[in-house]
Amino acid sequence: MSVVVAKFGGTSVANPERIRSVAQRIVSRKRAGDSVVAVVSAMGKTTDDLVALASSISDAPDPREMDTLLSTGEMVSMSLLAMAVAELGEEAISLSGRQIGLITDSVHGKASIREIHADRIRVALSAGRIVIVAGFQGIDAAGDITTLGRGGSDTTAVAIAAGIKADVCEIYTDVAGVYTADPRIVPRACKIDQISYEEMLEMAAGGAGVLHKRCIEFARNFGVTIHCRSSFSDEAGTLVKEYDPTMEKAIVSGVAHDLSEAKFTIRDVPDTTGVAAKVFGAMADANLGVDMIIQNLSENGHTDITFTSPKADIERTTEVMNRIVRELGARELLITGEVAKVSIIGAGMKVNSGVAAQMFTTLAEGGINISMISTSDIRTSVVIPAESAEEAVRLLHTAFGLDGAKVFEETQLSAEELAAKANKGR
Amino acid sequence: MSVVVAKFGGTSVANPERIRSVAQRIVSRKRAGDSVVAVVSAMGKTTDDLVALASSISDAPDPREMDTLLSTGEMVSMSLLAMAVAELGEEAISLSGRQIGLITDSVHGKASIREIHADRIRVALSAGRIVIVAGFQGIDAAGDITTLGRGGSDTTAVAIAAGIKADVCEIYTDVAGVYTADPRIVPRACKIDQISYEEMLEMAAGGAGVLHKRCIEFARNFGVTIHCRSSFSDEAGTLVKEYDPTMEKAIVSGVAHDLSEAKFTIRDVPDTTGVAAKVFGAMADANLGVDMIIQNLSENGHTDITFTSPKADIERTTEVMNRIVRELGARELLITGEVAKVSIIGAGMKVNSGVAAQMFTTLAEGGINISMISTSDIRTSVVIPAESAEEAVRLLHTAFGLDGAKVFEETQLSAEELAAKANKGR
Repeated sequence: MSVVVAKFGGTSVANPERIRSVAQRIVSRKRAGDSVVAVVSAMGKTTDDLVALASSISDAPDPREMDTLLSTGEMVSMSLLAMAVAELGEEAISLSGRQIGLITDSVHGKASIREIHADRIRVALSAGRIVIVAGFQGIDAAGDITTLGRGGSDTTAVAIAAGIKADVCEIYTDVAGVYTADPRIVPRACKIDQISYEEMLEMAAGGAGVLHKRCIEFARNFGVTIHCRSSFSDEAGTLVKEYDPTMEKAIVSGVAHDLSEAKFTIRDVPDTTGVAAKVFGAMADANLGVDMIIQNLSENGHTDITFTSPKADIERTTEVMNRIVRELGARELLITGEVAKVSIIGAGMKVNSGVAAQMFTTLAEGGINISMISTSDIRTSVVIPAESAEEAVRLLHTAFGLDGAKVFEETQLSAEELAAKANKGR
Repeated sequence: MSVVVAKFGGTSVANPERIRSVAQRIVSRKRAGDSVVAVVSAMGKTTDDLVALASSISDAPDPREMDTLLSTGEMVSMSLLAMAVAELGEEAISLSGRQIGLITDSVHGKASIREIHADRIRVALSAGRIVIVAGFQGIDAAGDITTLGRGGSDTTAVAIAAGIKADVCEIYTDVAGVYTADPRIVPRACKIDQISYEEMLEMAAGGAGVLHKRCIEFARNFGVTIHCRSSFSDEAGTLVKEYDPTMEKAIVSGVAHDLSEAKFTIRDVPDTTGVAAKVFGAMADANLGVDMIIQNLSENGHTDITFTSPKADIERTTEVMNRIVRELGARELLITGEVAKVSIIGAGMKVNSGVAAQMFTTLAEGGINISMISTSDIRTSVVIPAESAEEAVRLLHTAFGLDGAKVFEETQLSAEELAAKANKGR
């Protein structure tokens, strides 16, 4: 007798057959005695199709209209799933973001959740119904539809789990859980049984795509246990929860990599007070993200500033930085998109010095050159050439004793679906 | 400087190109000084696709879920049209049924409008915006999405026109207006410049598909002038409004025909008190519509009861009537779907006796057999064999002096689109 929130992504509801299989799964849970809320994304390529339609009308569609347009994708899948559940003989009710009172700010396209009024969900659960909710969407104070941006449906699920005090928030995906490294690169990667919020956050920040950072933060803030598992099997996946002593104290829990960032270097900038503030203030004003930052030692009153930032914004970032280079009288701007960030993550790093050194040694022995380093309590990240990324991940996975006995088995997804999945994050 | 509500059907917004052309049209109106509210249907075949998706999941989808599912079609087209208007440099805002406060009862699939709170439309118009509204949808008291059924988007447009006291409600369609007969059958059919609500209601009841009965009734009840016109030209179409002396006093304004009904006859039913009540009470209980009714003179204490009813419900009607035949001890049930109803409509019929007789004479001379007759103040309808329908319409059109000089020109629609249009009525 648990209260379960289960989130199913776009590939899990890609067609009527898969929708029926999701229905079967949640009906079984219900009949086993659980109260079930299912959160769904839009079917398969629906969102891409809607984006293409909008692009054919306008190069810069109004963000409010875009949100209304995109929100229809989740409404279609929630209605169909509710029909499929009813077809199996259980009572179901679908509810939109508006109907579950998911109130956000008005930042269309990446709205933040302000509050959630879960009364209607609670009432429906008490009446013995399976509740199906449209992920990714909410409404702002004016009653306009907003969307939550990347990882939005996962965040919806966690927010509901917090709102109704669910026992667990299950995130169904196309992999069996969180792995010690990307199994497509490291065939001996192992599924992690339990991981703390902090480690999972660092995994996500390091590029592990299974769960989005916002969703993990939300779960941590409200103490929601996430169960990240496969929609194609009944096997247990990975529990993401408060650190507790039963968790293995591996020094390194996983290796993550990220090819989505570009590296920018401002060469020979006069080293005066406020230079860094000027550079990163300009990035912030332009609403551009920055990940790692290095400033070299000053030489002859000049210094180099290097940082990484999403490749997706490379053009706008270049524009802003060219202006800054002129304003600061720096020598030049160097840009490369051919970099990878590779990170090792582990709660055990807090008390084990020497982990970072072992990482650098391993990479050096592999002939891999490190251009940037950044560390946190439980993570060490390096920037290396993109072509060395896979090799680096494999070397580190072996060096830190993470290689399992079992070789990873292929998921049921096609190459196109995996690619689509990698490009998205609703 | 008028306030205009303009409704565009599914064929008018079938693809991005047509959406842009609708945007151009309403932007021109705005720039000419009018305040414009556009009401849109779902794009082209969207509704059919959604219905097919639901059918692949369930044979009898839950009506509440079906309404949520279908309502997404209009939300897609309203967002896209708003983007297209913005692209032309005018401010636009799209609003769903919920956002315009269109409150209905809870009869999912064919909800009736209870009230409309047009404040948000008025505010947006005052701010100089073009308002785009999703037709066909509303919400009930519980906040659940409802749809208005056949003719729903037209009804939405008329309700808004009533709510904001618009000067005119323009219904854009794929024909140039209301014709004296279906121009696909009668090439010399003429466009009618003005027609009274009552005549238009009888035309719709007789099978003229341009405007739905509910929408005309709504317009009559709230005194909204409808301008029914082509979305492919700027020519004036047909004004539907309160009868006024400037309207032509043609004895017969038009000829309508309807192939959508079947004829049921209950033979030799014992003629006791309450027999008709029993038959038609059973139909009402099963929520089945009845159009024309005839009861023959009683002979030896037995009578025949004949009625017409939508072919779409022929199976359920047969089921109900078979039960009634047994209960009443009647001899048998005769059913034929091969019938047509042909009607002549005209306000002048009120004061001109002999019109019905002229109709019967014309048909008799054409060798067409009449099996049922029904009349109202301004309409006479007959049921004849389906294969004689077109011939009958042409004969009556000529006999009542309706033939024009000009032969009807083809619309810009393809045969498929015309067929789709004929099968729908959102």
